[in-house]
Amino acid sequence: MVGIAVLGAGRIGKIHAANVAASKFAKLVVVADPFADAAQSLADAFGTEAMLDCEAAIDRDDVQAIVIGTPTHTHISLMLRAVRQGKAVLCEKPIDLDMAKSLAAVEEVERLNGRVMLAFNRRFESTFAEMRAAIDAGDIGEVRQVIISSRDPGLAPEDYIQHSGGIFRDMTIHDLDIGRWLLGEEPVELTAIGSRLIDPQMMEKYDDYDTAMVQMQTASGKQCHINNCRQAVYGYDQRIEVFGSKGMLQMDNLRPTTIRRWNQDVTDAREPLLNFFLERYQQAYKAELDAYIEALVKGTPMPTTVQDGLKALQLADAAVESVKTGRAVRL
Amino acid sequence: MVGIAVLGAGRIGKIHAANVAASKFAKLVVVADPFADAAQSLADAFGTEAMLDCEAAIDRDDVQAIVIGTPTHTHISLMLRAVRQGKAVLCEKPIDLDMAKSLAAVEEVERLNGRVMLAFNRRFESTFAEMRAAIDAGDIGEVRQVIISSRDPGLAPEDYIQHSGGIFRDMTIHDLDIGRWLLGEEPVELTAIGSRLIDPQMMEKYDDYDTAMVQMQTASGKQCHINNCRQAVYGYDQRIEVFGSKGMLQMDNLRPTTIRRWNQDVTDAREPLLNFFLERYQQAYKAELDAYIEALVKGTPMPTTVQDGLKALQLADAAVESVKTGRAVRL
Amino acid sequence: MVGIAVLGAGRIGKIHAANVAASKFAKLVVVADPFADAAQSLADAFGTEAMLDCEAAIDRDDVQAIVIGTPTHTHISLMLRAVRQGKAVLCEKPIDLDMAKSLAAVEEVERLNGRVMLAFNRRFESTFAEMRAAIDAGDIGEVRQVIISSRDPGLAPEDYIQHSGGIFRDMTIHDLDIGRWLLGEEPVELTAIGSRLIDPQMMEKYDDYDTAMVQMQTASGKQCHINNCRQAVYGYDQRIEVFGSKGMLQMDNLRPTTIRRWNQDVTDAREPLLNFFLERYQQAYKAELDAYIEALVKGTPMPTTVQDGLKALQLADAAVESVKTGRAVRL
Amino acid sequence: MVGIAVLGAGRIGKIHAANVAASKFAKLVVVADPFADAAQSLADAFGTEAMLDCEAAIDRDDVQAIVIGTPTHTHISLMLRAVRQGKAVLCEKPIDLDMAKSLAAVEEVERLNGRVMLAFNRRFESTFAEMRAAIDAGDIGEVRQVIISSRDPGLAPEDYIQHSGGIFRDMTIHDLDIGRWLLGEEPVELTAIGSRLIDPQMMEKYDDYDTAMVQMQTASGKQCHINNCRQAVYGYDQRIEVFGSKGMLQMDNLRPTTIRRWNQDVTDAREPLLNFFLERYQQAYKAELDAYIEALVKGTPMPTTVQDGLKALQLADAAVESVKTGRAVRL
Repeated sequence: MVGIAVLGAGRIGKIHAANVAASKFAKLVVVADPFADAAQSLADAFGTEAMLDCEAAIDRDDVQAIVIGTPTHTHISLMLRAVRQGKAVLCEKPIDLDMAKSLAAVEEVERLNGRVMLAFNRRFESTFAEMRAAIDAGDIGEVRQVIISSRDPGLAPEDYIQHSGGIFRDMTIHDLDIGRWLLGEEPVELTAIGSRLIDPQMMEKYDDYDTAMVQMQTASGKQCHINNCRQAVYGYDQRIEVFGSKGMLQMDNLRPTTIRRWNQDVTDAREPLLNFFLERYQQAYKAELDAYIEALVKGTPMPTTVQDGLKALQLADAAVESVKTGRAVRL
Repeated sequence: MVGIAVLGAGRIGKIHAANVAASKFAKLVVVADPFADAAQSLADAFGTEAMLDCEAAIDRDDVQAIVIGTPTHTHISLMLRAVRQGKAVLCEKPIDLDMAKSLAAVEEVERLNGRVMLAFNRRFESTFAEMRAAIDAGDIGEVRQVIISSRDPGLAPEDYIQHSGGIFRDMTIHDLDIGRWLLGEEPVELTAIGSRLIDPQMMEKYDDYDTAMVQMQTASGKQCHINNCRQAVYGYDQRIEVFGSKGMLQMDNLRPTTIRRWNQDVTDAREPLLNFFLERYQQAYKAELDAYIEALVKGTPMPTTVQDGLKALQLADAAVESVKTGRAVRL
Repeated sequence: MVGIAVLGAGRIGKIHAANVAASKFAKLVVVADPFADAAQSLADAFGTEAMLDCEAAIDRDDVQAIVIGTPTHTHISLMLRAVRQGKAVLCEKPIDLDMAKSLAAVEEVERLNGRVMLAFNRRFESTFAEMRAAIDAGDIGEVRQVIISSRDPGLAPEDYIQHSGGIFRDMTIHDLDIGRWLLGEEPVELTAIGSRLIDPQMMEKYDDYDTAMVQMQTASGKQCHINNCRQAVYGYDQRIEVFGSKGMLQMDNLRPTTIRRWNQDVTDAREPLLNFFLERYQQAYKAELDAYIEALVKGTPMPTTVQDGLKALQLADAAVESVKTGRAVRL
Repeated sequence: MVGIAVLGAGRIGKIHAANVAASKFAKLVVVADPFADAAQSLADAFGTEAMLDCEAAIDRDDVQAIVIGTPTHTHISLMLRAVRQGKAVLCEKPIDLDMAKSLAAVEEVERLNGRVMLAFNRRFESTFAEMRAAIDAGDIGEVRQVIISSRDPGLAPEDYIQHSGGIFRDMTIHDLDIGRWLLGEEPVELTAIGSRLIDPQMMEKYDDYDTAMVQMQTASGKQCHINNCRQAVYGYDQRIEVFGSKGMLQMDNLRPTTIRRWNQDVTDAREPLLNFFLERYQQAYKAELDAYIEALVKGTPMPTTVQDGLKALQLADAAVESVKTGRAVRL
């Protein structure tokens, strides 16, 4: 049994805590969060201990592995503290919003041979995983184009937007990771466009965009398109298409039921989509944590790494630069 | 070029006339209908001759083949008149609503080796035809169950209901033919139920039903279910499923476009269905007429026969009897 | 916390035990099964006690509610033992394969005001539940026709068939319950047909059928069709269509992912279906148990009753009789 | 009746000739093509006259309107000859592959108030037209993003590629027109990428690409993505998605039937797509010609103009430049 500390008792921490508690191979030793109420209530739900001090939780002798679900600006210091003690880490993305800091952190992790997994949860969702497996199995031959549609159900509140790091580092970054992963090669060139169509005033205030597209290409010529929007009235829209020399794979959205409705106005109509990422990727979070624990127990390499986090951030930064300069960015 | 007379200038006659006119192998010699205006206007549309007397049209020397689209009670006399002169006939179904008369007519046609094709147009529609071809090709192994859903967009007016012969002989009969055809064996037992759910008063008045189900079985145990309703608010609903030992085939409805709509209420929603049989089976009417003309030109057997018409009527009559007696009817 | 004993440590008992263990409102007190290994291994998995004697488990003071997942012939005696002690019961269906015994048991349960829930799990699955809710909300107006397709992935082994009670009491019974439930009225007439298309020899040996259809009608004329087959090569096929005066609801199957594949042979192709009922109805079993515990905790009526079990068995018996006599059976 | 001359008796000329012949408002006066056999055989099929000299056909007194389906390099001279005589023209796109020549031609057409319709046939296809109508009706609010997937079934032969003008001017140009049309605003910035993934050698030889993406933006920030490939093994793939503030519209491909197949490997599988543009857009060609004739008969403005042709060519040229320079191109 691996003793695990979950840092952060917010919505993402709750999910991780539940998945740790349900694992046969791990024990939820402690939940830590400076907000005492949040920490206590989450600890109670799973009959475990609460702490206010995340660093003290890392340092405990009965803790061998950490799950970091705290605010982004705390990721690096918590991650490195654990790595320096030889403890394993599952860290929410991004490493940091700042590239220089991220780079330095990754260097230290690698120098110390740290075992850190970056939480690119989507890769573990059953359909995403099956797409990657089908590509690997040669089902669609050589990949030629990857088309990613990713739209949020509703514009986040101003407070969130202000600290988000901007649409490319906050939202597109997930799709940039999936794009890299499905292309199977590193992008070498990227162009992005950004628009302010939902709330132009707020977006201008924070020099941000609410609607975006990215186009990128690998050295061998494989292409990827991403479209993002901060608001889709029909729900949280997550679709992918991978087109190859021998066929195509499409991933559809999830709905709560399989019902189709027919009436005077519509036929074959399905329900609105699962509202947001916690519902949509519930299975992915569980599979991600299981993969983390399996790597811990078996001593195998982490399925996603800090390098993946760095690459995604580089692509996001390139998108920001491309929108600013109106040019393609070479990577 | 085969000289063809189209008898009946109503909505079905118009479709046949247009298809004859478009054929490279046939000439639309005359359109006949006792309603002078209807006959003349249809003849004008295709630059051909109009006549009031259907029998005289049959008798013309420049007419080698007949297409009968007149009211049901006139079918037998027109058909036999043509057959006695050695002329070919494409006759709308049913042969007649009365079984004894139909039987006598079929006997005479067969005694005279008459070339009569019964207009089971659905068999010629591309999806129906492909389903039959896929079964013949062994794609789904041995047929086990055929499920036919067939619902009209709206209840016909009282005048139509009164002279329709009842739901089983007017509406179910098409599905009974398709059931026989897809089963590939003759049904030996049939049970039917009928309900009055749309307009109970009118249905009671004419001893008719507006909602019905039929269940039948062949000697080897293949099964068929049919459901009918005189009114479906979402349009003219025509779906079929053939389930076999190695797989299943499903036929969906047609819509005017391929659009799918997404909004706050629905996702993936398609348009209401093509309204009614003339639109739904437009391609089928053309393919049916082409098959008729091809059989004429090549001298090959008629693709559907008066025997098919008789069998379908027998099944319809059995359904009427089954509803009356509450018993399965042996055929 | 309600103390619960799970009787039977087979595949269904395992599911119930896991769901009890995961409930916040119940405690898994004991798992009982005469097969010592099965009982112990299941008890160990959830850190609870194992017993060999099911009756002794019922009698325990720390047990307030029972979940019966033992072989069918033991259902009645275990159920009545618990009821006589004033304990609640969730019992797998059917009550018994024998109608007289079932009737007597139901009478005793009702005389004692026993709290017994029959495990019609499908009613609790999210799509089934949403269909019932949509009908209740008037979304499709008055129900006219219910079409139920229900096919197993593969023929069960001979040993299972021999003791199954026949296709109608073993397989169709689930669809008969769903039919009653979606019609919202009791069927008053039923006709069934049965065929031996998969393994005629085995079916003949046990006087059973592997392929069946049922057609039934309520007093007001609502209609229901059920089709069953013991083998569908594409997987466990569970679809329903409810057609009403204002629209239609369709329920599709579940697949492990949302992938659609395109290649030279097919487009838009989905994966084979979830293999069998434990996978397909996983969510339903959990929702069913939650509903049972909620009724226990709140003291509200059981969501499904022994009457439901009796009615379903009556319909199954009527189907058997109808196949034998070739007649519709009045209920 | 408008007298129409069809210039060019190739595959596109054949379609136009058939549609002219079927029109109630037009007369197919002559078919002209320097290939005598092609001209004669097409003229014979519709019982009309054949000529070798396209210019002479334009000059005929009984010809009031021209349909140009000849090779691209002849478009301008034939178009201007007709315009100078005050005759109307439906001209296949593009005007020319050279921007300067196209510009000069458009200027002359506009100076002479010439009535020229550019054959952007897709705009007339029922689903495309319904999408535009739904946007105009406000069904999806303000357009935010247009996603266009457009892939050919197979790489054209070398001879075609050599004279095609390159993927952007030959293939993407159709999607650029549709993008402009659905955005409802002129793009002001465009970035394109091109790859050689199918036949790198041939593509290098002609400085062309077989796989491409385009990303563009209007002044108000509406965005459009186009993806193209010269080869899709599953058929001619033509899909569009228009995402707006109140919803989304999706256009699916057409298949020959509505069959869905289920077997051990796949469920819900549809047929490969209609092979290529003549089949896929058959209805569009007819609707386009009807719109042309309607404009002629009513004297209303042409539904598509030489300006549309010019704009599409400008966008295609910008795509070529963007690929060369690796930069976004301001328009």
